[in-house]
Amino acid sequence: MRLNLNADLGESFGPWRMGDDAGLLEVVNSANVACGQHAGDPLVMRRTVIAASGQGVEIGAHPGYADLQGFGRRPMQLSDEELAASLQYQIGALAGIATACGATLSHVKPHGALNNLACEDDAVARTVVAAVAACRPDLILLAPVFSELARAARQAGQPVALEVFADRAYTASGHLVPRRLPGAVHEASETCVRQVLGMLEAGGVLTIDGDVLPCDFQSVCVHGDTAHAVRTARDVRAAVLAAGHELVALSDTLPPR
Amino acid sequence: MRLNLNADLGESFGPWRMGDDAGLLEVVNSANVACGQHAGDPLVMRRTVIAASGQGVEIGAHPGYADLQGFGRRPMQLSDEELAASLQYQIGALAGIATACGATLSHVKPHGALNNLACEDDAVARTVVAAVAACRPDLILLAPVFSELARAARQAGQPVALEVFADRAYTASGHLVPRRLPGAVHEASETCVRQVLGMLEAGGVLTIDGDVLPCDFQSVCVHGDTAHAVRTARDVRAAVLAAGHELVALSDTLPPR
Amino acid sequence: MRLNLNADLGESFGPWRMGDDAGLLEVVNSANVACGQHAGDPLVMRRTVIAASGQGVEIGAHPGYADLQGFGRRPMQLSDEELAASLQYQIGALAGIATACGATLSHVKPHGALNNLACEDDAVARTVVAAVAACRPDLILLAPVFSELARAARQAGQPVALEVFADRAYTASGHLVPRRLPGAVHEASETCVRQVLGMLEAGGVLTIDGDVLPCDFQSVCVHGDTAHAVRTARDVRAAVLAAGHELVALSDTLPPR
Amino acid sequence: MRLNLNADLGESFGPWRMGDDAGLLEVVNSANVACGQHAGDPLVMRRTVIAASGQGVEIGAHPGYADLQGFGRRPMQLSDEELAASLQYQIGALAGIATACGATLSHVKPHGALNNLACEDDAVARTVVAAVAACRPDLILLAPVFSELARAARQAGQPVALEVFADRAYTASGHLVPRRLPGAVHEASETCVRQVLGMLEAGGVLTIDGDVLPCDFQSVCVHGDTAHAVRTARDVRAAVLAAGHELVALSDTLPPR
Repeated sequence: MRLNLNADLGESFGPWRMGDDAGLLEVVNSANVACGQHAGDPLVMRRTVIAASGQGVEIGAHPGYADLQGFGRRPMQLSDEELAASLQYQIGALAGIATACGATLSHVKPHGALNNLACEDDAVARTVVAAVAACRPDLILLAPVFSELARAARQAGQPVALEVFADRAYTASGHLVPRRLPGAVHEASETCVRQVLGMLEAGGVLTIDGDVLPCDFQSVCVHGDTAHAVRTARDVRAAVLAAGHELVALSDTLPPR
Repeated sequence: MRLNLNADLGESFGPWRMGDDAGLLEVVNSANVACGQHAGDPLVMRRTVIAASGQGVEIGAHPGYADLQGFGRRPMQLSDEELAASLQYQIGALAGIATACGATLSHVKPHGALNNLACEDDAVARTVVAAVAACRPDLILLAPVFSELARAARQAGQPVALEVFADRAYTASGHLVPRRLPGAVHEASETCVRQVLGMLEAGGVLTIDGDVLPCDFQSVCVHGDTAHAVRTARDVRAAVLAAGHELVALSDTLPPR
Repeated sequence: MRLNLNADLGESFGPWRMGDDAGLLEVVNSANVACGQHAGDPLVMRRTVIAASGQGVEIGAHPGYADLQGFGRRPMQLSDEELAASLQYQIGALAGIATACGATLSHVKPHGALNNLACEDDAVARTVVAAVAACRPDLILLAPVFSELARAARQAGQPVALEVFADRAYTASGHLVPRRLPGAVHEASETCVRQVLGMLEAGGVLTIDGDVLPCDFQSVCVHGDTAHAVRTARDVRAAVLAAGHELVALSDTLPPR
Repeated sequence: MRLNLNADLGESFGPWRMGDDAGLLEVVNSANVACGQHAGDPLVMRRTVIAASGQGVEIGAHPGYADLQGFGRRPMQLSDEELAASLQYQIGALAGIATACGATLSHVKPHGALNNLACEDDAVARTVVAAVAACRPDLILLAPVFSELARAARQAGQPVALEVFADRAYTASGHLVPRRLPGAVHEASETCVRQVLGMLEAGGVLTIDGDVLPCDFQSVCVHGDTAHAVRTARDVRAAVLAAGHELVALSDTLPPR
């Protein structure tokens, strides 16, 4: 099976560093790059784009709410028009920087509270998809399996790739177990590896109850809040390759259009 | 003669309004739209783009230093790389919004303290031009006559249009008289009209000493800090048309490439 | 009866002006001054404090969510600790500037979405009151009648003054009719005057159904979103004085402690 | 001799961490706490104040330019009035949080580009001192030896404590060797220790040329940009104590008033 690994990157800001981007870039196929509103400033974005390009890693936009202090993790109420403009602003900004670096954007994945809302709320999902389609109909929407966001993208004819998480437990309905609940986040690298291999074998999401929810997926998000994100990412990569899967760019996971 | 009128627009932010954009859009051919760092937020940008498009007014990027509180008028020290990334971020952001609204960008004009520096400092001018060329080699650099910015754009082969100001006095060397000096800003609409007509007739800049500095120019900036910016803009437009000149888009003022 | 008039002031930011502060300062007894997070920057705060002091107008803190773009009107989810720290930051900041100008703070009134939440949600109300009490037990909490915020302040022993609005309609339970509903905001100055005089005569809030909800109140908020806020404020002031009431500082409306 | 060790702390922001505050709090007597404009948000400030208090570490304000992206290290042009208001805002904000935590402020030390300017430019130094004096005449100005800031504080009668740096080389005139020059920053912990002990013995600053510039000083800044700031701080502390000096609060280094 052709599979893709993705991670959120470029989430430093000004003097502050976040994450081990260099380490993750050695592992993933696709980087979701913060666009300056919840994290990332133009210089961070430029350096992330150059580093990703240099490693042959695909670049996607990772837009979020304009809330540095809350890192885009606090829900905010924006009108549809304001949300659309914010998304187009962020995607365009990263595209401008990417072009200047000789790179192109392949996909878009919303961040944090915005992503959560777009996964649960059909109206927000459709606003997000329409906003992306209006400025970049070529971008792949990278969306969680069983999400409203994925559904809305498919309905709108926007290319969409589905992702599962290596380090998060799934409910019986195929959604992420909220972080505040016990067992929501897999700390151990082995648990993450087992989950990914299990999902590949089962052809679907493994729920916290031990069930399988059959579904296609094209990408595994290996970035997480665990202390050893890079090690986990490396282990997942190694295990997936050892199991005979091929790791490819997002666009290579999709059927030809 | 084919002439262009331009003004800075979209400089509101969040709940705060600035300027009479609707009034200016009835007068100018080209709008320089703030890009969210010194003024403008994505929603303001979107509405400005839609309003300009609706009036058939050309849209350009008006990037500035990331300093809302100082409105981009305070000099800031950025490395070349940071400045380039900031410009590409802002141009790309506006382009993203414009595309979503069915519009395109025609030009770029730096704002405030950044523009001042790029007009005086050859190294900064070349950084600005190179940054624009790297992401949008098609954009016309709208630069003051006798500026380093204009020189750098010409040397780099970037399309460039030269502007004069309707409401500012010029020194013997063809630069703007600093605002703090008496006579720097023409308050009266008639003075602005006289200056523009005089420059058109003389084929160059009229200095505060009464001399003429011969030079080509393609555009007149009618946006100003005078209380009656819109009235002045209207009067300049009427006078220019009455004198038999044609008001056109920036690209129509340039020789075919 | 001794009555107080209050208004929100100092809501400009950087280059952007908001409201007619000079006009309102001639009318009100108490100014609620924005503290730099939803509006107001240190220079605006300083000038507002100086202007208010010069007019003999009492100064209070008007803290809000840290969201310039949304003007503090978008609900945000802050932990209790973060909300408390933000309030103490803002109150302290204004106090620092006031002290430097020879002025003191008399009261505090939360802004926008934070105020709405503190009026409806008992837990938030108690967090707000405790945060104020911890840094400034002397400040009067200026809170709407029938609000959780008023109740929490009274329970905690924090001095509290109750306000009614001149330009807003009240529901049967004594809360403001949401803005989106018809009739929520009184546009006409005469309607505002009539509402204030009616409440003074009735000794309570007049509801949109024509009922009276008996309650004490000490202050009338005359700042509003109507186009003619200053004129309305002047008319209310004149009418209240003509009806024989005395306009005083907030502290003079409270029983001696 | 009674000596004080100080360091800059609380320079995290939102999701981003900076420095090893817990480690430094075990070493220093005085913490200079960022005030939310160049770094630090209200929650970071609160937690820093609580941590410092809990360790018996004195708390001072560390105000800087309002430039998160540039971390207050980019020079900005503010009018005297704006600078004063910004300082009073920041000092007041920290004081508000400190009061709520049962703590008090002892001193103030400007940050970054603002500190550099106040050390070199007499007019700025006097603006800073006057701004502090206007809101908190009790706060000790913590200023570098041979600085305009120290001179201005002394002239104004504001309490002042002089600091030297453990990890920075000094020019022949007693100023810091600019960072861009070789040898400006001592990387090795032993070099820092030797410099501090040498200065204590010599009763003055040791210059890069090997001279001694006699001067009193009360405090040593042990925070630095070296990779091992905490280790250096610990080593300096141990060496100073071993040499028989006493480590005390800033106020205990000053003559009784």
